[in-house]
Amino acid sequence: MLTVIKLIWVSYLLFLVGSQDSNSIAQGQFLSIQTKPDPDDSAASARWLLSLNSWGVLNTISTDLDGAPFGNVVSFSDGPPNEGSGIPYFYLTTLDPTARNALKDERASFTVSEYPLGTCGNLDPENPACSKITLTGKLKLVDDSKEAEFARISLFSKHSEMKGWPEGHNFQVFKLEIEDIFLIDWYGGPKPLSVDEYLHPKTSSLGFIV
Amino acid sequence: MLTVIKLIWVSYLLFLVGSQDSNSIAQGQFLSIQTKPDPDDSAASARWLLSLNSWGVLNTISTDLDGAPFGNVVSFSDGPPNEGSGIPYFYLTTLDPTARNALKDERASFTVSEYPLGTCGNLDPENPACSKITLTGKLKLVDDSKEAEFARISLFSKHSEMKGWPEGHNFQVFKLEIEDIFLIDWYGGPKPLSVDEYLHPKTSSLGFIV
Repeated sequence: MLTVIKLIWVSYLLFLVGSQDSNSIAQGQFLSIQTKPDPDDSAASARWLLSLNSWGVLNTISTDLDGAPFGNVVSFSDGPPNEGSGIPYFYLTTLDPTARNALKDERASFTVSEYPLGTCGNLDPENPACSKITLTGKLKLVDDSKEAEFARISLFSKHSEMKGWPEGHNFQVFKLEIEDIFLIDWYGGPKPLSVDEYLHPKTSSLGFIV
Repeated sequence: MLTVIKLIWVSYLLFLVGSQDSNSIAQGQFLSIQTKPDPDDSAASARWLLSLNSWGVLNTISTDLDGAPFGNVVSFSDGPPNEGSGIPYFYLTTLDPTARNALKDERASFTVSEYPLGTCGNLDPENPACSKITLTGKLKLVDDSKEAEFARISLFSKHSEMKGWPEGHNFQVFKLEIEDIFLIDWYGGPKPLSVDEYLHPKTSSLGFIV
């Protein structure tokens, strides 16, 4: 099976975002998983997919299209590089339908694939061993100033051009409050993975306890 | 602006799928656009995104998750290589929630990005000049045998491993019947593009008439 998992507890974010406890800001336990985890470790697989990907498809209920599910390509970040929190943050404008939809109906999901990471080898993008994850929950405007600051640090560190996006477009920070996790990272159907296991993975299962 | 558009009318598919008129099978006009079109040509941009991509996110209304919009990574094909029809076909099993959802509520959308094609240069995936498209409509099981045959040829020619997927999983051909098109391929908001313009683009606008 796949090997070598690195786990790094991050403390300097506490400095960046002030004295507030980091988990109370971003909710998820900070960690870094650089190498594809063993697929038996669902939490590690899921967190790896989120921390290494830079974009995905954010789904909302369309107010313009009779309640249809509306997917939209967006950039995201769950933390600064190597310090993923597991929570996807977005930088959206209501000039785009996704933010408008969410402000009327928070139900949403966010989907990312392993395929663009280049680690699927010759596998087809739909092959279960080429991982994919869909986080379902509520897409919310981040109105807490500390969390918004953490989110902007997370987003701008992975998407440098965002800082320069037009002020007049009024980009705002949103996040997905996760309620359900659909993870496929091997054959045999979706892996059972609770939100708590995802946000606070057992460090022993990651093979490295700090 | 971007240059060189090649358009090829395809006739041998008529042979492959029998004597039925090709447009009546796949609905869309067959064409091939290998090079990124001028973003002013919305139809060409949209068809290029569909014909060159191999995967995207297919969104349905979740029956398991209280009607939430549920995105899922899937492989697709809109035709054999260089012969895109514009209609995305999928190979799905009801072991997966997406097909189950669609059989209960056909409302769906399908989202693809230019980013994985590698033609966005240094642009962020959310930058409007890095194209993205969302086709909204109804996700339907393809029960016409001629169209299903065309779809399988289209899918298997781009996804060779599909042929060997487990028979017991009962994979079936689905397609998105497109009702609305959301295309971003440049600055200035979504491009107006009707389904008819998308399925039957003006060849003169593609710069090459066969």
